[in-house]
Amino acid sequence: MLIWRANLREGSLQREAVPEAWSRLGGRGLAARIMLDEAPPTCEPLGPNNRLIFAPGLLVGHMLSSCDRISIGGKSPLTGGIKEANAGGTTGMQMACLGMAALIIEDQVPAAGEDRTRWRVLHLSQEGARLEPCADLAGLGVGEAAARLLKRYGDHVALSVIGPAGEMRLSAAGIQNLDKERVPSRIAARGGLGAVMGAKGLKAVVFDAKGAPKPPIADPEAFKAAQKAFTLNLASHPQTALYRDYGTAAMALMCNALGALPTRAFSSGWFESAEAISGERLREVTLERGGDSTPTHQCMPGCVIRCSNNYGGPDGKSLVTPLEYETIGLMGSNLGIGDLDTIARMNWEVNDLGLDTIDLGAALGVAARAGLMAFGDGARALELLQEIRRGTPLGRILGHGAAMVGKVFGITQVPVVKGQAMSAYEPRAIKGTGVTYATSPQGADHTAGNTVRAKVDHLDPKVQAALSRGAQISMAGYDTLGACIFAGFGFAVAPEVVPALLRARYGRDVPPDILQVLGRETLVLEREFNKRAGFTPAHDRLPEWMTQEQLPPHNSVFDVSEEDLDGVFDW
Amino acid sequence: MLIWRANLREGSLQREAVPEAWSRLGGRGLAARIMLDEAPPTCEPLGPNNRLIFAPGLLVGHMLSSCDRISIGGKSPLTGGIKEANAGGTTGMQMACLGMAALIIEDQVPAAGEDRTRWRVLHLSQEGARLEPCADLAGLGVGEAAARLLKRYGDHVALSVIGPAGEMRLSAAGIQNLDKERVPSRIAARGGLGAVMGAKGLKAVVFDAKGAPKPPIADPEAFKAAQKAFTLNLASHPQTALYRDYGTAAMALMCNALGALPTRAFSSGWFESAEAISGERLREVTLERGGDSTPTHQCMPGCVIRCSNNYGGPDGKSLVTPLEYETIGLMGSNLGIGDLDTIARMNWEVNDLGLDTIDLGAALGVAARAGLMAFGDGARALELLQEIRRGTPLGRILGHGAAMVGKVFGITQVPVVKGQAMSAYEPRAIKGTGVTYATSPQGADHTAGNTVRAKVDHLDPKVQAALSRGAQISMAGYDTLGACIFAGFGFAVAPEVVPALLRARYGRDVPPDILQVLGRETLVLEREFNKRAGFTPAHDRLPEWMTQEQLPPHNSVFDVSEEDLDGVFDW
Repeated sequence: MLIWRANLREGSLQREAVPEAWSRLGGRGLAARIMLDEAPPTCEPLGPNNRLIFAPGLLVGHMLSSCDRISIGGKSPLTGGIKEANAGGTTGMQMACLGMAALIIEDQVPAAGEDRTRWRVLHLSQEGARLEPCADLAGLGVGEAAARLLKRYGDHVALSVIGPAGEMRLSAAGIQNLDKERVPSRIAARGGLGAVMGAKGLKAVVFDAKGAPKPPIADPEAFKAAQKAFTLNLASHPQTALYRDYGTAAMALMCNALGALPTRAFSSGWFESAEAISGERLREVTLERGGDSTPTHQCMPGCVIRCSNNYGGPDGKSLVTPLEYETIGLMGSNLGIGDLDTIARMNWEVNDLGLDTIDLGAALGVAARAGLMAFGDGARALELLQEIRRGTPLGRILGHGAAMVGKVFGITQVPVVKGQAMSAYEPRAIKGTGVTYATSPQGADHTAGNTVRAKVDHLDPKVQAALSRGAQISMAGYDTLGACIFAGFGFAVAPEVVPALLRARYGRDVPPDILQVLGRETLVLEREFNKRAGFTPAHDRLPEWMTQEQLPPHNSVFDVSEEDLDGVFDW
Repeated sequence: MLIWRANLREGSLQREAVPEAWSRLGGRGLAARIMLDEAPPTCEPLGPNNRLIFAPGLLVGHMLSSCDRISIGGKSPLTGGIKEANAGGTTGMQMACLGMAALIIEDQVPAAGEDRTRWRVLHLSQEGARLEPCADLAGLGVGEAAARLLKRYGDHVALSVIGPAGEMRLSAAGIQNLDKERVPSRIAARGGLGAVMGAKGLKAVVFDAKGAPKPPIADPEAFKAAQKAFTLNLASHPQTALYRDYGTAAMALMCNALGALPTRAFSSGWFESAEAISGERLREVTLERGGDSTPTHQCMPGCVIRCSNNYGGPDGKSLVTPLEYETIGLMGSNLGIGDLDTIARMNWEVNDLGLDTIDLGAALGVAARAGLMAFGDGARALELLQEIRRGTPLGRILGHGAAMVGKVFGITQVPVVKGQAMSAYEPRAIKGTGVTYATSPQGADHTAGNTVRAKVDHLDPKVQAALSRGAQISMAGYDTLGACIFAGFGFAVAPEVVPALLRARYGRDVPPDILQVLGRETLVLEREFNKRAGFTPAHDRLPEWMTQEQLPPHNSVFDVSEEDLDGVFDW
């Protein structure tokens, strides 16, 4: 495994040995380590000194179920702090086959962004790197751009590609990756890394592992045994069946029952039309419509959970893949929209623009508070998304996400932390997830440590900090392994599997609690970067209004103490 | 002297004794003390927990030349930190006569901002407070609003009033005050305090001191003697003559000669048409045109400097009063506009909207970098200002200032610190002022400590931190006294005058270096507020690009060391 370092100003590629201090990390942890070692924490996120880092997790490359995720990292233009966003799909696997411990993209294409002739594709293969012009792709949505890139470079490649949002350097722009059917639908969505890529002048990175060997395994037998145990644990877990049948959308009714489904711009936790946007309804519709429609689908080869789906229209033709709970919560109930077809159309549009559906849904909710659309008006919401495609001032405001909409229109009830929008778990009703939103170095993000499944009183402020601490450590660990959060169901049943897999893969000893070791190390690195970037405990807070305005139906406020918030990382 | 406390939710007014800890402060220092004691530093600036504070300086109320300034304070929606903006005009005098040590405005008119019927005028007189509806003023520019308020409440009152920008809660909105001819032209411009007032639901505060006595003087004879010495020193100072003849516009050619005149979005420090926008040219034009036009004018009664002016059009009718150097630099050379008439028209428009000309000029410069206007195209610049009046998305973006324009359009070369635009002294050419921009708790602001007049090599990075320290202490002292920066010419000649005036006014002893004592105390209070709000040394920096891109004609970068920046407040 080597570090691949591409400098866009020079058009050069170096392949370097992995420094000792980096060698036990992967994915999110490695991205944090590299950022701390190389990028000035106070650098301008859209400037030449920021890095864009692609790092497959430590377990990537072996078709371990749900463990081939790619982490993308850098300094976030949305939060101003460290950022890692990860995705499924095929990018991680191709990187691992190419022997990349990480790809570090430095500097910018000269005069990046000044006109369409400056756009470049970075093609990486065993032969090295080629930086090729792609003026024909400028302004294209990710769907059309990916189709042309696959035609140009072959169907076998993996792609990381930005849409018009990334080109416009919008802070809610993500980086799209291909799923196993080569649909650009696996987005490293959060925190504006698409804008970082756009600022560098890159429209796409092509990973072409043709002819490359599989990544080595130190002890294949031991690996196989551990893999088998993991797969069995995972396949037989009751949550796996739930997610296979209903996908992440299974959370809609559960959250509504908890009073935690963001509704009408986070003004309520209960949506009267929750049934109509539930996982149950999604399953019913997709089965009924047939054609492309399916309630269960793998985002990457080897996954036994298959929580993805393909949502077809009345004619069965795909409207979007996948339709996830976060999108349903933020673009459905949060906008008062109780109709899956409308949500699917919005989802496709946002995917194709290369944007984060969470921040966009939250942005439209704030826009509704500002009078730019009525709650429930899906047609108007779709019109607003077209403003982004046209690059109008209003479109750009929306494409920068919820915090920007609030700022420009003077709305203070904005559901963000560190500038990043909350996911579809209302922190006044699931207070442990609220602690994660407040304190995660990533900004508000359920994937940083969701506590919704914990068997506790989610309204009791006293028990939440410890819960969030454990969840944040585990999630940072999974993100360093390249494991999907749902792989955790399998790991939780048999915690000895993670160390067994790592020992077999790398031929070195690791402690039994390696998941937590990696998680804690990652969080320490991220927090150190943020500290140097200027973050303090004052930034580890939910927005003031959520500590004062009561949320129906429980009429609760976020009341976890500041002492508890400040102690989350005291382990 | 009492603290007047108006609660807008309750519609109540309390008059309270001045707490001991506040009693030796005024103006900027008192505003900082009150903010630290009463407002949660992490509060939402546009939320109910922010305060809006009006505090006349310690010397206000006696027609001491240039010493009747009003400080307005609160937490800034632009910087997220402490804010004080001060202005000349008549507000400070009327407050002093009413016996106000400070006016603290708390909370918000219920449902402030939801429709035009919510707007209120706060009328303050010896009888107390009245909170009166003013739906008829909603949306009006400050000119028309002030005219109607004077008709309603009488020509003798002082006004603090916001324009459409404050109503829209735009971050570059200021608060306008009347000059001695009752023109609303003395704006507490910087940092968005107009938006704070708008968020509270206040269109105007009326200060009606009719029948009120003059503020008491403990030792009238001693005061008179000190006042006389001060006035003589000031009147005979060579700088006074310069500013009387040419106003602040005298700086244009001086800065151009230093290579420090911001030109075309801070891409150069030298403007080929500087003569055409100079103080010399301004004097020539105003004298030639006659009518309202005059190169010299008092912003408040008693001033012997008279650095203000009234700039008339070809027919002699006033285009704007006053036309200041900062506006000339930011809306002239910074936009490539070499024509005083155009600048004057833009200036009037921005004044009437109730905006900060510095942040707006900088914003238009960034807009030019983003391709929204061509440098030199004054007609287009005026069109863009109309977007603000219409409240379009583009207009709102511009009205939030330069940082917002950069963010929305993905431009990284933005001349701001802590989100606030730099004044018309290029920090790569006047590096001491650059140190002030970087480290002032107020964000980039020349009035926080300008070093342009110091007899040093302005390009030498080594001598600037000490220079800025001294300037920042003095300025914080003047702002606490209510003294104009130019009053400093008089004080500098005879430093014993400040303590003499304070002893005579208040009948208590003060140390000989009271100016520095007040300045240091004010800075300590402000920095403590900012620290609690989440600021760190990482925020005390110029934007990264100014440390890397060379500025013609000296081809210098900002290279004062981070150690020096971090040591500015180690006195």
